[in-house]
Amino acid sequence: MGPIRKAEARVVDEAPNSVALPDPFPLYRGGVLRGGRIAYESWGKLNAARNNAILLFTGLSPSAHAAATPENPSPGWWQRMIGPALAIDTSRYFVLCVNSIGSCFGSSGPASINPATGQRYRLDFPEVAVEDIARCGYETARALGIEKLDVVMGASLGGSVVAAFAALFPHGARRLISISGSGAASPFAIALRSVQREAILRDPDWQGGNYAPEHPPRNGMRLARKLGTITYRSATEWRQRFGREPLAGNALRASPFAPRFAVEGYLEAQAERFVRVYDPNCYLYLSRAMDRFDLAEHGGSYRAALAGSQAERVLVIGVESDLLYPIHEQAALAEAFEEAGVATQFTRMPSLEGHDAFLVDIPRFDAAIRAFLA
Amino acid sequence: MGPIRKAEARVVDEAPNSVALPDPFPLYRGGVLRGGRIAYESWGKLNAARNNAILLFTGLSPSAHAAATPENPSPGWWQRMIGPALAIDTSRYFVLCVNSIGSCFGSSGPASINPATGQRYRLDFPEVAVEDIARCGYETARALGIEKLDVVMGASLGGSVVAAFAALFPHGARRLISISGSGAASPFAIALRSVQREAILRDPDWQGGNYAPEHPPRNGMRLARKLGTITYRSATEWRQRFGREPLAGNALRASPFAPRFAVEGYLEAQAERFVRVYDPNCYLYLSRAMDRFDLAEHGGSYRAALAGSQAERVLVIGVESDLLYPIHEQAALAEAFEEAGVATQFTRMPSLEGHDAFLVDIPRFDAAIRAFLA
Repeated sequence: MGPIRKAEARVVDEAPNSVALPDPFPLYRGGVLRGGRIAYESWGKLNAARNNAILLFTGLSPSAHAAATPENPSPGWWQRMIGPALAIDTSRYFVLCVNSIGSCFGSSGPASINPATGQRYRLDFPEVAVEDIARCGYETARALGIEKLDVVMGASLGGSVVAAFAALFPHGARRLISISGSGAASPFAIALRSVQREAILRDPDWQGGNYAPEHPPRNGMRLARKLGTITYRSATEWRQRFGREPLAGNALRASPFAPRFAVEGYLEAQAERFVRVYDPNCYLYLSRAMDRFDLAEHGGSYRAALAGSQAERVLVIGVESDLLYPIHEQAALAEAFEEAGVATQFTRMPSLEGHDAFLVDIPRFDAAIRAFLA
Repeated sequence: MGPIRKAEARVVDEAPNSVALPDPFPLYRGGVLRGGRIAYESWGKLNAARNNAILLFTGLSPSAHAAATPENPSPGWWQRMIGPALAIDTSRYFVLCVNSIGSCFGSSGPASINPATGQRYRLDFPEVAVEDIARCGYETARALGIEKLDVVMGASLGGSVVAAFAALFPHGARRLISISGSGAASPFAIALRSVQREAILRDPDWQGGNYAPEHPPRNGMRLARKLGTITYRSATEWRQRFGREPLAGNALRASPFAPRFAVEGYLEAQAERFVRVYDPNCYLYLSRAMDRFDLAEHGGSYRAALAGSQAERVLVIGVESDLLYPIHEQAALAEAFEEAGVATQFTRMPSLEGHDAFLVDIPRFDAAIRAFLA
């Protein structure tokens, strides 16, 4: 990537580590990327046989900072899962987390600089597919000298990336863990993401994608994130957590329709945090990728897509309260792996935290992943 | 109401019939309305004893036009339920449907003309509560000479209004039917409506509520309605109805993030229809009323609120696939009626159409209501 100007640091953080993608890099739905890079972070040591590597894909919005590192000691998004003696045991494994292509945390994407022009790509960035995320993850591992992953895993969007990985690289991993992912977005999830994208697209500050980095379409991003936050949790959890508690303080009561309930304050905090760190065009790109992904494009059915998989074992996890990617979608993925002849374990989590349970219900996820990796 | 200018006909249709509210009319959360009116439509004939009247409350967005009338032969929003020999049998009952106070179809609300100024009320309209809707319905019946309703019924917001009616007017009705309503909004429903309101409030065209009638905050209203539409149905119904069908035609594919799936075309049609007929300020008022309603405000608990009810029989209906007002909320209402000593029937509908099932799954709702009224 080219040099990063100060004003852009908000959304394009140069990750401590990155690798060059093959150049040119053709994308799954057409278009070619030149000079592409993928940012990653890692924990633990690659052994001499190079067969102890775990490749971790993220959801839509996180960076590769899944856990603290010497360079960045702030807690990562899966801090309680990755470390010595934790479920993803860094005293045993070399753990590699990649920032998805199309995202804005060091990997090439709409917010990064096009080396050919010295300007941000914006909408000139080629369309990104879930398959591209899978391939860029694999290319990152290969650039680090790893031809076969011990484990490829991911949750949410990352759970779908794992399925794409299995279809594209049947020999690429010994074991797979797909959490709260889907083989193809349902019309309900598509509808929700369509509204989120429209909120950004119709914000006058989007400017057809050409907003100034310091003046992004805040209102659209706020709405998109608030709606996302609603779909990431569950009504049952919120009933217990917020009930009808009023919002503390009167600061927000200035206007007649200002937030009044505690749950609205929670949405507000989530939205403001997101606006500060995420790039709107990147959001649009990855949101569209999630809608368009269909594992059945690879051979006509999920089963055909996975037919060649040489994975030895697969763990698929679904959460009963997941509204966005309901558990029957993970069941369908598990069934397809099984029909493809892979030893498959399907775990139904009774967590109340919905789609986000993997981030919150650590005791259950710790136990399931620890047992599978043991 | 004052004379209606041409440009305003879009949102303030003078209903064929309306009654004057008591003047002054104090509202539940403060403020007083002067010269208020409630629009209604009716079907069937009031008998000499005036004891065959059904009062029907609507959801958030419909008008009083629940079925065709000689004055307006276009189909109403519950056309298949109201008529001679239909479930709500107009050869037996005098059926009265009111446009909620705060709405924009002939009743006083933010979009109607303040007689004191000759201008639209806009945000000067006093805050509207679910209790006010109940009371205005009852005042309408009384203005027509009906002191006791045979049946008071409603669905969605109307289902909550029925509960408020029971608390406020324990002697007001012989029978009650509350469909897909709630005694108090859950934090999940509050969150969804909060995002809908924010979409309107942050649309620059909202103009602090002072938009020109011919230039409403279209983008915000579109987003609010699309999100509403998602919450009114169910993921299961949409999987069967839309799957991952592409959107027919290429008209909308002009931009890279334009709708691509059939489900997005459906949302688009719903949004455009809504923007044409509904007033944004009215939407904000009624949306807030739904959030703030809590039946337990009347005495400390649902049970206390309903303790004085002299209703002879109550039917509460919930739909198993309802995402917005989940069925445990109707179960709680039914339980409270029962504890208050009212003969209560609770019907669980296995319909797939979610919150909107009462509009769509006519066979089931016809049978349940027909049996209860028989």
